[in-house]
Amino acid sequence: MADIIQPRVLKGFRDFLPAAEMERAELVEILERIFRLSGFVPIDTPVLEYAEVLLGKAGGETEKQVYRFTDHGGRDVAMRFDLTVPFARFMAEHASELYLPFKRYHVAKVWRGENTQRGRYREFVQCDFDVVGVDCAGADFDVLQTIHAAVSALGAGGFRIRINHRGVFNRFLEAIGLSGRSVEILRIVDKLEKIGADETERLLAELAGGEAARTVMEYVTPGGGFESDLARMTSLAGGPNPDSERLAELFAAARDAGFSDALVLDPSITRGLDYYTGVVFETTLDGLPEIGSVCSGGRYNDLASLYTKQKLPGVGASVGMDRLLAALEAMGKARSASSWTRALVLNVEDGFLGRYAALAARLRAAGIATEIYPERRKLGQQFAYAERKGIGMAIILGQAEAERGVMVLKDLAGRSQAEYSSIEALAAALAQAEGSAR
Amino acid sequence: MADIIQPRVLKGFRDFLPAAEMERAELVEILERIFRLSGFVPIDTPVLEYAEVLLGKAGGETEKQVYRFTDHGGRDVAMRFDLTVPFARFMAEHASELYLPFKRYHVAKVWRGENTQRGRYREFVQCDFDVVGVDCAGADFDVLQTIHAAVSALGAGGFRIRINHRGVFNRFLEAIGLSGRSVEILRIVDKLEKIGADETERLLAELAGGEAARTVMEYVTPGGGFESDLARMTSLAGGPNPDSERLAELFAAARDAGFSDALVLDPSITRGLDYYTGVVFETTLDGLPEIGSVCSGGRYNDLASLYTKQKLPGVGASVGMDRLLAALEAMGKARSASSWTRALVLNVEDGFLGRYAALAARLRAAGIATEIYPERRKLGQQFAYAERKGIGMAIILGQAEAERGVMVLKDLAGRSQAEYSSIEALAAALAQAEGSAR
Repeated sequence: MADIIQPRVLKGFRDFLPAAEMERAELVEILERIFRLSGFVPIDTPVLEYAEVLLGKAGGETEKQVYRFTDHGGRDVAMRFDLTVPFARFMAEHASELYLPFKRYHVAKVWRGENTQRGRYREFVQCDFDVVGVDCAGADFDVLQTIHAAVSALGAGGFRIRINHRGVFNRFLEAIGLSGRSVEILRIVDKLEKIGADETERLLAELAGGEAARTVMEYVTPGGGFESDLARMTSLAGGPNPDSERLAELFAAARDAGFSDALVLDPSITRGLDYYTGVVFETTLDGLPEIGSVCSGGRYNDLASLYTKQKLPGVGASVGMDRLLAALEAMGKARSASSWTRALVLNVEDGFLGRYAALAARLRAAGIATEIYPERRKLGQQFAYAERKGIGMAIILGQAEAERGVMVLKDLAGRSQAEYSSIEALAAALAQAEGSAR
Repeated sequence: MADIIQPRVLKGFRDFLPAAEMERAELVEILERIFRLSGFVPIDTPVLEYAEVLLGKAGGETEKQVYRFTDHGGRDVAMRFDLTVPFARFMAEHASELYLPFKRYHVAKVWRGENTQRGRYREFVQCDFDVVGVDCAGADFDVLQTIHAAVSALGAGGFRIRINHRGVFNRFLEAIGLSGRSVEILRIVDKLEKIGADETERLLAELAGGEAARTVMEYVTPGGGFESDLARMTSLAGGPNPDSERLAELFAAARDAGFSDALVLDPSITRGLDYYTGVVFETTLDGLPEIGSVCSGGRYNDLASLYTKQKLPGVGASVGMDRLLAALEAMGKARSASSWTRALVLNVEDGFLGRYAALAARLRAAGIATEIYPERRKLGQQFAYAERKGIGMAIILGQAEAERGVMVLKDLAGRSQAEYSSIEALAAALAQAEGSAR
C-alpha cells in the first residue's frame, strides 16, 4: 500500500465546510435576487485567459501577483485576478451580440498570489455589477439604488453610502492652482480616515503650503449634511458645474426614492487614482464601521479601451464578500445550523425504506427539507446525527405505528412528541414548527 | 495610444452571454433546490491545490491533461480536474470536524487540457453529490431518489435510471470461470450500446471462446423487466447473494416510493473499471437517448484511501451539466428571453428619476423585476432596448400622467395599454400579465 499523502491546502486558500458555504451561498442568493429584480443579467468568463489579454493594462504590483504559466500548447496564460478586465474583454469581443446600456453582474472567484501575512486570501469570490454604455445620472443612480436594496436585504442594520465626485475635486484643485499636484493630494486625502485630520493637514502643508492645506481641509471635511456640504464644495470649486449638478441630481433622486438618509456626501473619498473619473462611493455599516467599505465603486469613462476603439463609459460597484461575511458573523447574524434539513425520518424498521422515501418525497413536495437516516441503527446514533446537522424534528414510523396508521413527530430540542394520521397534517405541523423556530 | 489587444478567449474556453448564463444558473438552482430538500449540504474547495495532493492517484491520461505549474513560492501546483479528488482530500483533512454519513453537493468548475477536436471543453462545470460513510441500500437509494427528483424537476420529459451492480457481474464471471479476464470483458461489454450485440459477441468470442461469449451475452441482454432480469442474472451468478439482494431491495424501495417505472436493470452498464465497486447507474432521457447519460455514478468502497487510513465507503452521482443544457436546448426547453426583467419604466420626463426609482422599488418589493431606462431618449430607442432584453411591458409616467394621477402600462407585444391610478393595481396587472405569458 502506498504511503498516505498529507491532505492540506495551499497557504492563502480555503476549504468551505457546510456551515460556511451555506452562509456564502445564502449571501450570494440575496445579492443575486436584488440584481435580478433590478434588471441586471449574469455573464461568465473563463478563469484562464491569454496573459497578454489579462495583463495588458496591469502594472507592476498586479502583474507580480498573477498566477501565470505556460499551458500544454505553449500559450502564455494567466488566471483572472479580477472581474473587471475579463468584463472589458467580454464587452469588446461580443459588442455585436450585445446592446447598450448593458447591465451585468458577475459573482466568481479570482486569484492573486498576495502576501498572506496581512490575512489576505489568494483565492476569493468577487461580486461585481455594472451599467455600461451610458454616462448619465440614471445609471449612477441605478447602481446606488441597487447597493441600497442589496445591503438593506442583508439585515446587517443601518449603513451609509458615502459618495463623492472626482470631477468636482479636480475642479476645486484647479480653482486653487493645484491641479498639477492632484495625484499626490488625492493620495494624502485618501488616508484621512486612517491618519486623522491633523496628520492629513500636516502632510498637505508639507506638499503645498499651509494655506492650501487649510483650504483642502475645508473642502474635504464634511459639515452640515449633503446639500450644505455640496454647496460649500461647489463654491470652493468655482461655482456650479455639470459634476456638482450630477451630485445634486443623485441626492434629489435618493430623496424622492426615500433613502437620502443613507446617502452621505464625503469629499474625502477618492477610490484609487487612475480608474474612476466621475462619482465614487463606499458603503459602511453603522454597526461595524471599522471593517471598512462593504460595497465600493464608481464611474469610469472608458471600460474597454485596451480591446476596442468603441468608447464604453460605465458605472459599477463591487461587493466585498469576505468582509460582509465577516461582518455578519461579528454581528451574530451568521447562520448556526449546518444544514437546511428540517426533518429526519428515523430508520427504525427493516424493509420500510420505500415507505420512508414516499413520505420524504411528499414532505419535500410541500417544501420541507427532509432526509432519511440511511440504515437502521441505534436511536442515539440517529439523534446524534440530527444534532450535528441541526435538524430539529424527527419522524418515527415503525411497524407499530404503521399498524395504527400514524406517524410520530418528535421535537428533538423540546423533547415533546405528537402523532399524526396523515402526511398533510404532519407537513402542516412541520411547517408550523419551522415558522416558530425562526 | 497603445495598440488594441485582440479580445479573444483560449481554445476550449467559453464566455457565457446572459441568455446562456441564465439558463445555466436556472439549471443549477433547480438541482440545488432538490439537493437541499433532500438533506445534501454544499462545500467548496480551492481551485488550485498541491499537485502532489491532486495527482497522487491520477494515471497517465489524466496527468497529461492537468493544468500544472510552479507558483510564486516555488510550489508545484495544479488546477482541479474533477470534484472527487478534492472531496476525498477534504474528507480526510476535516474528518474531526465532520460527521458520518456525510451528504454533500458541489457545483463548480474543473479544468482539463483535453484535445478540443472532439468538441470537448477545457473548462466546464461539474455537479456532484455523494453520501459518504455508509454502505447500505438506504444510501444507494438516497442517491437514486435524488436523481429521480432532480431529473423530474427539469421538465425534460420521461427518463430511465439504468442500474447495475458490479458485484453481481463479478460473481457471474467467477461462476463461469472468467474472473481473471474481468477487466477485458467489462471493457467490451461497456461498448455494447455503441457497437451493437453482434460485434460485442464477436469480440467476446475472440477473447474467451464462443460458449463463454454466448453466456455473457445472455447475462448482459435485458429481457422482461427488472425482476425477471434480476432473477436470470442472479441464477447465472450462482444464486442469491448480498449484491443481488441489494438490487432487489432498491427495486422494492423504488416501487414503494412510486418510481420503479423509471428504474431499469441494465446488466451492460459498467461505468469505468477501477473506481466503482457496487451499484452503478446512468440516466438517459427518453426524448434524447443519443445524448448519452445526463447523470451517472455508483458506489465505491473507499473514497479517501490516498489521504487517510479511515475507510470511507460512499455512493454518489455526477450531473452532466453541458449535456443537460444541450438536451434542454434540443428539446426546445431552453429559455428565450435574455433577462428576468418584467417591466421597463420608460424615461420620458427630466427630473422624474426619483419617482421612477420609487415606483420601481415598490414593484420589486412585490417580486416584479423592474428596471428604469437610465436617461431620456427617443421612445423607439427605449422600446428597442426592451425588445433586446425580452421585456414585455413598459410603464409610462410623464408630467401629463402625473397630473392626472395615473401610470400607463403598455404591453409591448400586444400593443395594448391601460391606465392605473395606484401602484398596487399596476403591480397586480403586471403579476397577471406575467402569469399569462408563461
